[in-house]
Amino acid sequence: MSGRSAIRHLALVGIGTGSPGHMTQAGIAALNAADVILIPRKGADKADLADLRRALCAGAVTNPATALVEFDLPARDEGTADYLARVEDWHDAIAAAWVAALAGRGGRVALLVWGDPALYDSSLRIASRLSPAPQVEVIPGITALQALTAAHAVPLNALAGAVTITTGRRLRDRGWPPDCDRLAVMLDADCAFRTLDPGGLRIWWGAFLGMPGQALEAGPLAEAGPRILARRPALRAAHGWIMDTYLLARDP
Amino acid sequence: MSGRSAIRHLALVGIGTGSPGHMTQAGIAALNAADVILIPRKGADKADLADLRRALCAGAVTNPATALVEFDLPARDEGTADYLARVEDWHDAIAAAWVAALAGRGGRVALLVWGDPALYDSSLRIASRLSPAPQVEVIPGITALQALTAAHAVPLNALAGAVTITTGRRLRDRGWPPDCDRLAVMLDADCAFRTLDPGGLRIWWGAFLGMPGQALEAGPLAEAGPRILARRPALRAAHGWIMDTYLLARDP
Repeated sequence: MSGRSAIRHLALVGIGTGSPGHMTQAGIAALNAADVILIPRKGADKADLADLRRALCAGAVTNPATALVEFDLPARDEGTADYLARVEDWHDAIAAAWVAALAGRGGRVALLVWGDPALYDSSLRIASRLSPAPQVEVIPGITALQALTAAHAVPLNALAGAVTITTGRRLRDRGWPPDCDRLAVMLDADCAFRTLDPGGLRIWWGAFLGMPGQALEAGPLAEAGPRILARRPALRAAHGWIMDTYLLARDP
Repeated sequence: MSGRSAIRHLALVGIGTGSPGHMTQAGIAALNAADVILIPRKGADKADLADLRRALCAGAVTNPATALVEFDLPARDEGTADYLARVEDWHDAIAAAWVAALAGRGGRVALLVWGDPALYDSSLRIASRLSPAPQVEVIPGITALQALTAAHAVPLNALAGAVTITTGRRLRDRGWPPDCDRLAVMLDADCAFRTLDPGGLRIWWGAFLGMPGQALEAGPLAEAGPRILARRPALRAAHGWIMDTYLLARDP
């Protein structure tokens, strides 16, 4: 990364998945303790996500000394063939974008993190690139998986059972994990559940979880799977983007 | 279960793991929308947990019409040999205890749930025993696992990797799951990590997560494991009980 960081303390604040109700008391306190809140802008097609972040701040930040600074999230270089190398380069670029957006400002900086900073989020790895290293504080937030199980009023785990959380890419590349009864799938841009034999599997699916446009489907995968495949393109067209997640369970 | 329930709407409110900072805006709203909040008392050895719940309500409940009703959590009948049967009987008894504590009251009832109602919590299964069936609403909350990863400022998953969440009992009975790099262990009363070959494994451990007495250990399992085993009896003696959880990762 380029340039020295003036960030002394970095609060990674999990904000949940778009519902202001997901904000925790600790998250609100961390935002109000910050000198600067960094707000990522993604492409224009995700403008409503930046709007959601602005609305969350407007509702939660009461400290007049806290400044909001937006930055453009760099794009991944899809020319880099290796997936992990592509991600590493991207994280370097994001750390540089934080420092550039702050333009020499620093002190206590807070970053709004979708979901929880511990689950399929790169802010911790990006923060480790800052030099000198800031003190990093993590404020946990409600994940899309929690919004999913809450919306369906179902437990994540079977009684005394285990659950595996994985990505769409891994499910597609490796199939159903061995010795697994419950599988939660995130970051799935391409409905990897289609690659499974649906026999004996149930699915609980949700898109735009916690948001006004929340969409839910549940049932035997053989029946609910085709319904999800049919609804998803229309939802994506209506919003310009889609984020969804699902839980799969083998019938006992 | 015995007796008819007058619960029309049941909000299962995830309250996090004891820190008032874990309370979400939606959780606070759900408590204030309730006619009655049910507060479980566990044995005297966990008196500080009941105190924590009372303190959370004192801080969060501003609606003077909301009544707090405590109930004694029934004990599991350890005379029932089969684990799952023992748990089923226990859930029947808890549903009956809810109805008995309400003494004919009902309407909108909220229940304080440690962590998140979806993860190793039985409130959803207990609620399904109520007759007539109430409308059930789940408010997600911060889990001990999220408090753990936040306290250590570590991600739950490796980059693009999967993570399995399991119980101490399963880890002890079945060993390390196949094709697994990251394993989070909950409900472990007996340090099941002792049953593993510590070579190539790291651990992030925490007890009383989110609470004033929070205790943390991290490092190679071969070094941190003995430290945890040494600290745990003293922590348990000081509090009269212990709740801990941990994340294990294989070195890449």
